[in-house]
Amino acid sequence: MKNKCLQDIGELALIQRICRKLPQRPDVVVGPGDDCAVVRPDKDSAYDWLLKSDPVIEGIHVFPKTPGRLIGHKALGRVLSDLVAMGGEPMWALVDIVAPSGTPAARVDQVMQGISALARKFQVAVVGGDVSAGLGLEVHIFVVGRVEKGKAILRSGAKPGDNLFVTGSLGGSLAGKHLRFMPRLKEGRWLCRQGWARAMIDLSDGLATDLRHLIHQSRVGAQLFLNAIPVSPAVKRPKNLTDRIRHALSDGEDYELLFAVSAVKTQSFQKAWQRSFSLSCTRIGTVTKRQGVIETVDGRGERKPLKESGYEHFK
Amino acid sequence: MKNKCLQDIGELALIQRICRKLPQRPDVVVGPGDDCAVVRPDKDSAYDWLLKSDPVIEGIHVFPKTPGRLIGHKALGRVLSDLVAMGGEPMWALVDIVAPSGTPAARVDQVMQGISALARKFQVAVVGGDVSAGLGLEVHIFVVGRVEKGKAILRSGAKPGDNLFVTGSLGGSLAGKHLRFMPRLKEGRWLCRQGWARAMIDLSDGLATDLRHLIHQSRVGAQLFLNAIPVSPAVKRPKNLTDRIRHALSDGEDYELLFAVSAVKTQSFQKAWQRSFSLSCTRIGTVTKRQGVIETVDGRGERKPLKESGYEHFK
Repeated sequence: MKNKCLQDIGELALIQRICRKLPQRPDVVVGPGDDCAVVRPDKDSAYDWLLKSDPVIEGIHVFPKTPGRLIGHKALGRVLSDLVAMGGEPMWALVDIVAPSGTPAARVDQVMQGISALARKFQVAVVGGDVSAGLGLEVHIFVVGRVEKGKAILRSGAKPGDNLFVTGSLGGSLAGKHLRFMPRLKEGRWLCRQGWARAMIDLSDGLATDLRHLIHQSRVGAQLFLNAIPVSPAVKRPKNLTDRIRHALSDGEDYELLFAVSAVKTQSFQKAWQRSFSLSCTRIGTVTKRQGVIETVDGRGERKPLKESGYEHFK
Repeated sequence: MKNKCLQDIGELALIQRICRKLPQRPDVVVGPGDDCAVVRPDKDSAYDWLLKSDPVIEGIHVFPKTPGRLIGHKALGRVLSDLVAMGGEPMWALVDIVAPSGTPAARVDQVMQGISALARKFQVAVVGGDVSAGLGLEVHIFVVGRVEKGKAILRSGAKPGDNLFVTGSLGGSLAGKHLRFMPRLKEGRWLCRQGWARAMIDLSDGLATDLRHLIHQSRVGAQLFLNAIPVSPAVKRPKNLTDRIRHALSDGEDYELLFAVSAVKTQSFQKAWQRSFSLSCTRIGTVTKRQGVIETVDGRGERKPLKESGYEHFK
């Protein structure tokens, strides 16, 4: 193990290694491993607090030609999407920018304009950060939000029998959505306040990978109705339905919400959603008892284990 | 202005540009521009919260040969030092790591060990973060702390007539201290709780630069007693006292505290310090009315404007 590089072990194994021995405190409700950390500094407060950080790196998450405004939008949008996936509302953000000395100052201005525009829309204050010289352009955003005490929607709350839903449509985000998506704040807050969702995750690495995170942390399995998966019109190339679904499963960066609703609430949930939002919300599967197993069901009723997986850093 | 690069305008001008138009909220007590941001999440809480982020970048803040443990120590130490400079105590941290795919996994482990060891010492929980592929090794740490409500020690509180103090000794930190310093948590908390310091900053960019930050934000000037500046024994090369003092003014990364104590309290402050700490605390100057001017006084009583400045990114 000693001589292994990050590309040998991959992002997920690296995260597991790192998380094993981190110091915690009694006021930490949820430590590493969910969309955000949850902390409770004051037992008398009506709120728990959500903490999240995430980078956007040129060459990895965006391209050297990506306009600065869209880089800023994506950088803040990603962390807001994680807060939303816990049912929270964002409050304050810090921004670390790394850039080579030869970067045009106007490009950094544009990044900040993109961040500020989205921050204003979601009433987030940008309260600090740092600028530093480095090898490539990067934007690291740290965000603090809040959620009603004890009400954060974790990845670990799904129960066998629950129905699985996704918002919007999936796949093909590289055509533009990965830079222009809007975090589903209204929807996430509603799912939390009304108590509909008992497990939730945002789709950043692709449905296949993110559903795996959700079932692992809930210690359950899932059955996925392939033909029900809402494929985005942005998935243009393969005409074959099977291949289009593969994109919806693996492309990633959809920034939609995947969540579990108990079977007894499902009908009233679906009606309430339709009354509240124009955004689509699709039932794509169910939660099963077969811990760790995702079984797909195709149009002919054929069942197979899910093979697809999404993006993983270093691999 | 449009075609200028970061190296043309430098870090300080870039930060000014960025901070001009950032969205804020009514619960932000101190926005960008101090050691940390101060927010008041709940009017009924006994505490304000402090938010801070800062990166450590290989090739800028550390070297490719720097042991991983020391990189981790420095990365967390830097943000803790900023919290301490507001009089606060740290609570939770998030860690973003960026690394090339060829980085040995053991190096990342060592970085995390360095972070965890210091976090344990200061009872900080590491509650999350991210790992991402990138061009060089970087550690971005985001920390949340707290301070008694309304008691954060800002850079802006110095008044003409105050005495200026520094902890420890300055200069020569590249010999080792820049990787092994201990944030002055006990001292900073004491200065805050006892109400001794009415303006404070931590010395990261060098006394010359950081004193300028303090007097600018306090809208005052300063007189600096050159011969009183405690030069670190780590400043070994120049035998000439004037040159040694120059190092103490400009080297940076001392992570000591610079603070202002009102003249009427100074005598009792000095006695109380000596009773409480073995760490030295030296009076190095006074606060004056001459806004924006730092005047040095040398051993012969000769007065000159201060020319030295510290490190600035991109320049």
